[in-house]
Amino acid sequence: MSVTAAKGFTAAGIAAGIKENGNPDLALVVNNGPRRAAAGVFTSNRVKAAPVLWSEQVLRSGQVSAVVLNSGGANACTGPKGFQDTHATAEKAAEVLGRGAIEVAVCSTGLIGVLLPMDKVLKGVETAAASLSEHGGEKAAIAIKTTDTVHKTSVVTRDGWTVGGMAKGAGMLAPGLATMLVVLTTDADLGSEDLDKALRAATRVTFDRVDSDGCMSTNDTVLLLASGASGIVPDHAEFAEAVRQVCDDLGRQLIGDAEGASKDIKVEVINAASEEDAVEVGRSIARNNLLKCAIHGEDPNWGRVLSAIGTTGAVFEPDQLNVAINGVWVCKNGSVGEDRDLVDMRYREVHIVADLAAGTETATIWTNDLTADYVHENSAYSS
Amino acid sequence: MSVTAAKGFTAAGIAAGIKENGNPDLALVVNNGPRRAAAGVFTSNRVKAAPVLWSEQVLRSGQVSAVVLNSGGANACTGPKGFQDTHATAEKAAEVLGRGAIEVAVCSTGLIGVLLPMDKVLKGVETAAASLSEHGGEKAAIAIKTTDTVHKTSVVTRDGWTVGGMAKGAGMLAPGLATMLVVLTTDADLGSEDLDKALRAATRVTFDRVDSDGCMSTNDTVLLLASGASGIVPDHAEFAEAVRQVCDDLGRQLIGDAEGASKDIKVEVINAASEEDAVEVGRSIARNNLLKCAIHGEDPNWGRVLSAIGTTGAVFEPDQLNVAINGVWVCKNGSVGEDRDLVDMRYREVHIVADLAAGTETATIWTNDLTADYVHENSAYSS
Repeated sequence: MSVTAAKGFTAAGIAAGIKENGNPDLALVVNNGPRRAAAGVFTSNRVKAAPVLWSEQVLRSGQVSAVVLNSGGANACTGPKGFQDTHATAEKAAEVLGRGAIEVAVCSTGLIGVLLPMDKVLKGVETAAASLSEHGGEKAAIAIKTTDTVHKTSVVTRDGWTVGGMAKGAGMLAPGLATMLVVLTTDADLGSEDLDKALRAATRVTFDRVDSDGCMSTNDTVLLLASGASGIVPDHAEFAEAVRQVCDDLGRQLIGDAEGASKDIKVEVINAASEEDAVEVGRSIARNNLLKCAIHGEDPNWGRVLSAIGTTGAVFEPDQLNVAINGVWVCKNGSVGEDRDLVDMRYREVHIVADLAAGTETATIWTNDLTADYVHENSAYSS
Repeated sequence: MSVTAAKGFTAAGIAAGIKENGNPDLALVVNNGPRRAAAGVFTSNRVKAAPVLWSEQVLRSGQVSAVVLNSGGANACTGPKGFQDTHATAEKAAEVLGRGAIEVAVCSTGLIGVLLPMDKVLKGVETAAASLSEHGGEKAAIAIKTTDTVHKTSVVTRDGWTVGGMAKGAGMLAPGLATMLVVLTTDADLGSEDLDKALRAATRVTFDRVDSDGCMSTNDTVLLLASGASGIVPDHAEFAEAVRQVCDDLGRQLIGDAEGASKDIKVEVINAASEEDAVEVGRSIARNNLLKCAIHGEDPNWGRVLSAIGTTGAVFEPDQLNVAINGVWVCKNGSVGEDRDLVDMRYREVHIVADLAAGTETATIWTNDLTADYVHENSAYSS
């Protein structure tokens, strides 16, 4: 159901010929109102793709009527011509939908540094507009895949209103660095300020804590569009929680399908002095290549966890650190703990708990193991 | 010649039985004076191995008579018992050499979280002391190898005085995180303050800019010992330059032998607003897994360079960035530059130049590519 689960939205996904293999590569999501409120969060990479620069401007008004998304090319590092191409894409969608171009967000994903085949993109926008449907959510989700093996959608329904969405990519999944595109829709009757608050709160603890390989995209975009078609104004906390659930679900799906990965690793930092400390330590552990290799080898190498913690500025004493891997406290008080042979690492999900013994705050970061398949896929992507 | 190239030093390397395969695993370096001045730099990891905690204390006096080094175990995260073991090792060396334990530095390398077999270590110190020789430098260098395929030594001789040294490990080479041990010796007649100044200046631009896999060791140690046996007091600038040359040579050898690596990558950042900016950008590029995979695949994927630059706080404008790979300016003004097919990547050394167009400062970081062999070696290390 994806982005068309909420009332007031239509979508389409088609093959525009941008991808040489003929797979679907262009999606269109349209908000038919009555409201056209929207919020968005974008990559914090200072090298931003043309569609990110454009969509940031679009979101300033808090109004989005449609989103055009393409796979097969990131339109990043493409100079003034790349920005003109994004603008032309928005103009074309505005024209066929009878709206203003400044209400059309654009997202692109694929290889950096290559211009899009604009004749195909513009023709594709026309074709997609002609096939818009209330049941088009799945097709849209399929059209934004790059090396994803499955498309990712999620829906949460409450009393009369719905939040749904689609996602592509994430870290290992996105070797061209056009990592993550997410479009969420709701028929809740909310304005852009409410959407923005809920979206930022949700992404901060979900997508911002998915860290497949530490590499930050030039194209990351998460959009939340509200049609108001349910006529219901939900309680803010309840709405925010629904958005968080959908983001959490999609984030988990991204990790679960990460390119080359054989393990999904949940890094839970507990008893930190602050949430910032917990996140810093979690990220340091999640980005440690040596640990990620060890997990791939089903080796509960807690020394690599301590070494990663030691590089952070978080509050802790080395001789008070504790580490559990899949429930076994292999490190106690910074030294040898329970028998590491007790750790069962046969399953895909691995749970690392790092106890900083410095406070009461906590954070969870999701990552993957580092595998020869990751190296292989990312060595060969653009050649 | 290694650590015994300079007059006033003897060394030994023996098999003490710490390694199960019977390879050499214990080295002893002795400064016979007349001076016993020394300086040291240690890992900035806050989780420090017992020998690092001990040797930091030893170095406070600026006097070192001997260094005991073992491979086969890092003695990191081993609690109070681990520290007692290091202390006992120093005591034993002091006893057999007729010196004070507080003049004996200790270095260990190998797996984290395992106690050393102390009966073998103490017996080994006795055996090593009995085989000390003015020609023992090579054997000492061999005894500190872990997964190194070759031992690393370097010597620079000037007018009547010499700086020599040995090194083991570095990044990929050191999957147990006991990454880098270096002992440098000189017969120059200098005190510990002069040594300290020269050593810090040298490591800052050499070992500190070798970044094989972004993982920081709990055991890193670089020691510089002066015997004064040449009777010559060199000019400080000349001495500092000799130390820098030896450190640079050893650092290059570490990168050249990095575990699993097939490419040595020189990341040169130019036209930065400050040296700090240049180092930050260089490190960000050197730690980007996606780029390291691309280089492995001989793919001049400059988009990944720009994406890495974009995550830093350095001064630059995205549309003024230029990137050259092996002499071809594949990215100009933040967009497509010269034809990427012109880039020849067949050789082991790869040279990336990132031009920030923001000033006049520069820095060079050395790293390696990311390979399936790296994953393999680091998946299997402790199992």
